[in-house]
Amino acid sequence: MTTTQLVQQIHQKQSFLCIGLDVDLTKIPSHLLQLEDPIFEFNKAIIEATHDLCVAFKPNTAFYEAHGLKGWQSLQKTIEYLNANHPEIFTIADAKRGDIGNTSSMYAKAFLEDLNFDSVTVAPYMGKDSVEPFLAFENKHAILLALTSNEGAFDFQTQDAAGEALYKKVIKTSKTWKNSQNLMYVVGATKAEYFAEIRKIIPSSFLLVPGIGAQGGSLYDVCSYGMNEDVGLLINSSRAIIYASSGMDFAERARAEALKVQQEMAVILKT
Amino acid sequence: MTTTQLVQQIHQKQSFLCIGLDVDLTKIPSHLLQLEDPIFEFNKAIIEATHDLCVAFKPNTAFYEAHGLKGWQSLQKTIEYLNANHPEIFTIADAKRGDIGNTSSMYAKAFLEDLNFDSVTVAPYMGKDSVEPFLAFENKHAILLALTSNEGAFDFQTQDAAGEALYKKVIKTSKTWKNSQNLMYVVGATKAEYFAEIRKIIPSSFLLVPGIGAQGGSLYDVCSYGMNEDVGLLINSSRAIIYASSGMDFAERARAEALKVQQEMAVILKT
Repeated sequence: MTTTQLVQQIHQKQSFLCIGLDVDLTKIPSHLLQLEDPIFEFNKAIIEATHDLCVAFKPNTAFYEAHGLKGWQSLQKTIEYLNANHPEIFTIADAKRGDIGNTSSMYAKAFLEDLNFDSVTVAPYMGKDSVEPFLAFENKHAILLALTSNEGAFDFQTQDAAGEALYKKVIKTSKTWKNSQNLMYVVGATKAEYFAEIRKIIPSSFLLVPGIGAQGGSLYDVCSYGMNEDVGLLINSSRAIIYASSGMDFAERARAEALKVQQEMAVILKT
Repeated sequence: MTTTQLVQQIHQKQSFLCIGLDVDLTKIPSHLLQLEDPIFEFNKAIIEATHDLCVAFKPNTAFYEAHGLKGWQSLQKTIEYLNANHPEIFTIADAKRGDIGNTSSMYAKAFLEDLNFDSVTVAPYMGKDSVEPFLAFENKHAILLALTSNEGAFDFQTQDAAGEALYKKVIKTSKTWKNSQNLMYVVGATKAEYFAEIRKIIPSSFLLVPGIGAQGGSLYDVCSYGMNEDVGLLINSSRAIIYASSGMDFAERARAEALKVQQEMAVILKT
């Protein structure tokens, strides 16, 4: 998917919501556990209940790998279902991969070609040759970890690196890499004041923003500092939406939560 | 496995060789491709031909994920085979994972408990809460990326971070984390002169060293700078050993290459 198509979708749906499909078997409704593939069934129900209110779905691979082979099958079925039934949706494999060049190429092919996700999250620590293989696919995107939403972000990312914070150095350096137009960035909502600084370096890039809701970030703060002319934001919410209820009404309640966020977004987009 | 057991194995076998099981279907003998699971069959043959000459095997997960479900099945069969038939071997899931705390816990459980690897490689960019979940398992190890063997290592790892190189800051900071005694570190052999500096910070930790052989690092240089009283090194070789031949004799030739390295190691251990 091109970013132009993504922007069109945002305006059409009046939403820049990304829903994280982080499926935890201890949190999903118990009546699903009797089915052959509870994770996929849960995802399918959430997708059907919310796909008109969001523009992206983001399964985090950890939640699938945690179930071994069966988990990978659920992940594969989920992305196949999305691509077959909702091709307008921007899909993100939240995998945080990164390795030496030839090895990163295998990860890139696995996620962007074989599983056919639109994008994959990538860790920057190993530098240029660990990220560039993810940028080699037309109309596909690598979403680089810049400033994450967790406590540990302050251990290295915000620390001084030759006169500026490491996350800024990461963003600036990444702009020099081949096909850097295919880069997006992870920037945590828990650090809204950093968005202004980041927009000085990458005014037009899309930012994937975790940390709204369960992790405590504010949608309005993030938008006031981080939004650009093309919106340029994908706000992720996982737990607050998908676990709104653990009863039979889980999909309806997820829709209700997604609708609340979408309506706030519509207001923001109009102002 | 405890590090004491690992050290015992090193002295018994007179080897601190780790063999990387980075199986590429375009490089393995063509007669294996007709079998139901060529990757597992290749691994089994390599393991049987070399297990007395090495102390660790390290499958890189990228090479398995590249084949989707079938690849994960091959990975699972490989680790099950190793645990069942060669429990003395130290096993490393070269996965380079890392995510926010509760998500890292799922990766940690997947690799260290369910697949039952002895260790897993972990990326440091997201800091403390992304790594500590991997340290919570008794007699299991997280191998933290410190200074990798690729070109991109110079983009951030060797760059200044508040007066010292980032990789040093990563190592120093990691020592303050809970259960840091379960940490080992990835340090690339292509940067032998850095080993002396690293040994000042972590004199007794085990270092996993990629980059000997195909990537050009020297075994003698690494040992002269990096070895400690307990040896403290696991030298990885992948391609130079497992692809020594692509003919019917691939396992014998892999053994011959592993034997060469083991004999060099035995000489080093005696001096």
